[in-house]
Amino acid sequence: MRLHNLSLVLRHLSDGGPRSRAAIAADLGFNKATASSLIRELGERGLVRELGKQVGRFGRPGRLVELDGSGHGAIGLEINVDVLSGVSRDLGRRPIQSLHQPFDAARASPERTLSALFDLVHRLLADLRRDGRAPVGIAIAVPGLIDVLHGVVTLAPNLHPGWRNLPLRELLRRHLGDPGYPILIENDANLSALAEFREGIEAGTRNLVYVTGEFGVGGGVIVDGRLMRGSQGFSGEVGHLQLDPTGPRCGCGRRGCWEALVGLGALRRALSGSEPGSIGVADQERLTAEVVRRAREGDRLALDCLAEIGRWLGAGLSILVNLLNPEVVVLGGYFVAVAPWILDPAMSLLRDRALAPDGGGCRIALSTMGFDAAVLGGSGLIIDQALADPRLLVGRALQPPA
Amino acid sequence: MRLHNLSLVLRHLSDGGPRSRAAIAADLGFNKATASSLIRELGERGLVRELGKQVGRFGRPGRLVELDGSGHGAIGLEINVDVLSGVSRDLGRRPIQSLHQPFDAARASPERTLSALFDLVHRLLADLRRDGRAPVGIAIAVPGLIDVLHGVVTLAPNLHPGWRNLPLRELLRRHLGDPGYPILIENDANLSALAEFREGIEAGTRNLVYVTGEFGVGGGVIVDGRLMRGSQGFSGEVGHLQLDPTGPRCGCGRRGCWEALVGLGALRRALSGSEPGSIGVADQERLTAEVVRRAREGDRLALDCLAEIGRWLGAGLSILVNLLNPEVVVLGGYFVAVAPWILDPAMSLLRDRALAPDGGGCRIALSTMGFDAAVLGGSGLIIDQALADPRLLVGRALQPPA
Repeated sequence: MRLHNLSLVLRHLSDGGPRSRAAIAADLGFNKATASSLIRELGERGLVRELGKQVGRFGRPGRLVELDGSGHGAIGLEINVDVLSGVSRDLGRRPIQSLHQPFDAARASPERTLSALFDLVHRLLADLRRDGRAPVGIAIAVPGLIDVLHGVVTLAPNLHPGWRNLPLRELLRRHLGDPGYPILIENDANLSALAEFREGIEAGTRNLVYVTGEFGVGGGVIVDGRLMRGSQGFSGEVGHLQLDPTGPRCGCGRRGCWEALVGLGALRRALSGSEPGSIGVADQERLTAEVVRRAREGDRLALDCLAEIGRWLGAGLSILVNLLNPEVVVLGGYFVAVAPWILDPAMSLLRDRALAPDGGGCRIALSTMGFDAAVLGGSGLIIDQALADPRLLVGRALQPPA
Repeated sequence: MRLHNLSLVLRHLSDGGPRSRAAIAADLGFNKATASSLIRELGERGLVRELGKQVGRFGRPGRLVELDGSGHGAIGLEINVDVLSGVSRDLGRRPIQSLHQPFDAARASPERTLSALFDLVHRLLADLRRDGRAPVGIAIAVPGLIDVLHGVVTLAPNLHPGWRNLPLRELLRRHLGDPGYPILIENDANLSALAEFREGIEAGTRNLVYVTGEFGVGGGVIVDGRLMRGSQGFSGEVGHLQLDPTGPRCGCGRRGCWEALVGLGALRRALSGSEPGSIGVADQERLTAEVVRRAREGDRLALDCLAEIGRWLGAGLSILVNLLNPEVVVLGGYFVAVAPWILDPAMSLLRDRALAPDGGGCRIALSTMGFDAAVLGGSGLIIDQALADPRLLVGRALQPPA
């Protein structure tokens, strides 16, 4: 019970921000003595701290209490086709460290990729340790179908073909010598959708779809405030919706998938088609920068190519709108940088193809998280879990909640 | 509080079936005196009744109590393109009456359709009254986009063009002289999905998609045990997913919508294409029977046509599987009757197009509700609402729940 109440206070401060003891008591229905006792215990454990004074409308001023949690660290990692990323954040969601390492995971064997990924984990863990912070969990984002329950990568079509039924959680757990904290494996776009819903530009929008444009095109769906996972955790696989049966060949072997029409691969193919070899950059951010430069210069090929991508983007979005009727679609990845050239054709086709008037009221928003959405979502999910079940934070002497 | 507890007992009997007083007390955490008092009150109001004796494993036998509710009636209506339907059921979900009336709602003005629909309502209400049953609510299923909150039909592409922003709930409410019970307007496929989830062949499957094949093709989506409505109630609009940009013209004005490829209109068009006029039947059940007869006789045109419909059915289902990862898709409408000829090509294309291995474990099931799914779902929703908030059932003398 006490553990549950400690969690209530932590989550309330995490969701709602700093406030006085009196406000915490009132918001959560505790008497003041209980609230003070809970806050004292959380303070002793370094989970909350006093911020300053707030002048109350009545009575004497109360000191503001805020979530501290700087003594703990949550780690989010991401395997992408050409980069490995990792962040650590404290329980107040403040960034501790952010690492990006170019890596050709599309070609490297799973063994080599895991070796590089585990090195990243060690660097993040070593830095937490050096600062005296205790790790509370690790989440890994993978572009593919994930068996979340068992922590297994079922299939990741854009990585090396060896990524099939790979027990990633178990491998990392063993590698770390069975640490006591949770390790989660999730689809990258699902984690990005969670990040957008929890702390993005459209945070709190209860029917939200996130679509990321990288070499792969992934989707994550929030329905009525909850991540939709489907029966096996495979929902939101938007990249392989077939939009054009006679379209270009996709990495999955099929034709005309959304990903083959609007992913960075399609952009690179279209741009280099008429000028072979002129775009040789491998990594996503450099390719995006090159396209933006050309579009700004008024390069006809680049502009036509972006308009075509915008139209196919809208065609795919209309499917999401007809099926899910979201209030907002948040675009991530390279779509954000090229938004000035793709949004108009996309919205036009979306409105045309959606059955509901005005696209069912769906807006398009641009993610502000750059390529970090998935690692923010992963570390954020670890933080949310730690605050919801704070046994790891307050020690195991306390009884677990019934 | 007492009203809430009365509701708990009613819903428990509705969901779980007959049981003894002792079992009700144990299941719901009441002491026996409280349970007996609640059951006595419900019995006096005709909402539960004693069924017989159950021999307990210990102690003296207890009488089984079951939901009665035969003194109340819930009404479900449906407007379809060529038929108006209505059912009434008591609170135990037992059918009282079922009416079907051929009606050309695709061509008749909304005024004429409403006049015929309201006549149906009066017949059902008069029969309830004659038997001494009190109506507890009316649900109307409409094939189109529904603003559920305001009870307005926003757009119904397969009905007369006048069905646009039509305040159906308000019109019926006024016509009935402002009765005290709820009137709900919902999308037909949403109500069918609810019926399948509550009492169909796959009842209780928490990630379930219902797809109905009639002249229109509609969908309803249950995510994690709840109907997905989207931000404006427009979700599940599967009929107008564009599968083939160069495909046949759809009733909505676009090309290659799923509905234009697998609806009864596509079937009629394909069959009559080479033998003009040979299929002149207007109504869905007769057209379906004619196609089944021809397929059984081995008619090559009918078989080819059904195989083609099966392939397009699978192509559309693969979109639902990639996006929603349901455990089961329940097919309704004419798909059930032609299942022997469409299921194999549909499953084959579904598995081929879905990214998840084996279609993410998705099964296809056939509805057993015939063309009645929507009216069963509507009357069932009214029953569920009455049991959840039984003020209408137990009279207004009691306090409403806080």
